[in-house]
Amino acid sequence: MTKTSVTVLGLGLMGGALAEALLRDGRTVTVWNRSRAKAEPLVAKGAVAAESAEAAVSASPLVIVCLSVYANAEEILGGAATGRTIVQLTNGTPRQARAMADRAAGLGARYVDGGIMAVPPMIGQPEALILYSGDQEAFEEHRETLAVLGRPQFLGADPGLAPLFDLALLDAMYGMFAGIQHAFALVRSEKVAATDFEPMATAWLTAMLGSLPEQAHAVEAGDFATTVSSVATSQMAFPGLIETSRDQGVDPGYLPAVQALLDRAVKEGHGEDGLARLITLLESP
Amino acid sequence: MTKTSVTVLGLGLMGGALAEALLRDGRTVTVWNRSRAKAEPLVAKGAVAAESAEAAVSASPLVIVCLSVYANAEEILGGAATGRTIVQLTNGTPRQARAMADRAAGLGARYVDGGIMAVPPMIGQPEALILYSGDQEAFEEHRETLAVLGRPQFLGADPGLAPLFDLALLDAMYGMFAGIQHAFALVRSEKVAATDFEPMATAWLTAMLGSLPEQAHAVEAGDFATTVSSVATSQMAFPGLIETSRDQGVDPGYLPAVQALLDRAVKEGHGEDGLARLITLLESP
Repeated sequence: MTKTSVTVLGLGLMGGALAEALLRDGRTVTVWNRSRAKAEPLVAKGAVAAESAEAAVSASPLVIVCLSVYANAEEILGGAATGRTIVQLTNGTPRQARAMADRAAGLGARYVDGGIMAVPPMIGQPEALILYSGDQEAFEEHRETLAVLGRPQFLGADPGLAPLFDLALLDAMYGMFAGIQHAFALVRSEKVAATDFEPMATAWLTAMLGSLPEQAHAVEAGDFATTVSSVATSQMAFPGLIETSRDQGVDPGYLPAVQALLDRAVKEGHGEDGLARLITLLESP
Repeated sequence: MTKTSVTVLGLGLMGGALAEALLRDGRTVTVWNRSRAKAEPLVAKGAVAAESAEAAVSASPLVIVCLSVYANAEEILGGAATGRTIVQLTNGTPRQARAMADRAAGLGARYVDGGIMAVPPMIGQPEALILYSGDQEAFEEHRETLAVLGRPQFLGADPGLAPLFDLALLDAMYGMFAGIQHAFALVRSEKVAATDFEPMATAWLTAMLGSLPEQAHAVEAGDFATTVSSVATSQMAFPGLIETSRDQGVDPGYLPAVQALLDRAVKEGHGEDGLARLITLLESP
């Protein structure tokens, strides 16, 4: 059986990595990039550089879009898309993904949106998780090809799901980084090397990750009873944390935002609840 | 060999758990609490309730202090402390710990400060990590007794180290929780259950924890070059993240604080650096 030919639109770091993985898999790969220069290294590896985005879209039944900005993707999706499967891997929001799906439907194209939970050097390896949502039939038809890029996971028919999960995972990651980076700054202000503190921090955060199932269950059950650590206990710890940060000349960073939420929780009578209560406060600003 | 007798001052949830663990280990335990009622359940289990804080301090060579507020601990440390080893497990700041160590030295007492990285139900189990710093000789002399409470780890002679690490670990944890709680709110706003999203989030955060050694090394080496994920890339992702949060009716929470830091990093010419660069920005507000 012949392997599906693929078009890749957008040859930034990520788009280039996607095209390379497909070339390594022996696919016919058509590439296009607004500035032609980025296509050259791929052409040297066997890719076909299309003269226009439209020609690129026409060239293959499967079109992978990976541009720097979603607006550019909207520009590109024209009449040539009819009958194609568009897999949109440009970072966007759920709202943008749904609008793009509608546009694709209007053009008679099948539409799958995706979120790449990996950095370019990971592309082509099973550690690269790629989330998809939208047209499940189109996804299943091209699953084998998409698996060349990374481990595919289909989330559901709503094209907004993949960008939603993508954003939510990034959200969780940035919070974790905000915490550890602030902690590194705090210990360094006392001449403790971040590298000396890191192993204990990693072990501690790994242990604390164990509370996520409980937090998720608490918020879904609407039952915030805790025998472990209450909102009030955390609220009492925050002034010391922020005061120490200031004493040490370290920017309080993300801490005041969490303190405000803890203060609000106590004020609204949730002091004895577990920390998962804060999720519902975020949901009702 | 007779087991060391121990005094526990402060019988809140944590102090009570400490006293119980020592009783279970067959120690002579003297307890004191400002409101006497909290001593009763421990007396029923074999503890001796002292009539005053002073009498309690006099009763044992090792005095464990676990009050709700550090100021109360300062009040309690009087003349009776002479010749005793004071182990301070009340939550405080490095500055408070150092002041208390000076005070103890003035009274002729040995001083060890500590940070309990566990919740009360964990006390007495090896999973309960307890950090100590200060007088190492006193710590080593009482290591066996302290090991009854949890796994002891000595950090150094500066009494401020244990509260510093304690605060820094909490700091890292609150950041991680801020991220995941916001992510839970985000997916829930699209009718995705937090319990459905949690396994993927836990796997993702576990993978992302793998970047902590690299971030620690980067900041210690002052070398922020990255082939993975730059400040500029993150800065570009933030408007979509915050916009989606607002679109979904979710409080942006901790996100604007991180966005401000990313914006500042780009403005100061660090766009191509890795995210560990943000640590140095926190250090120079």
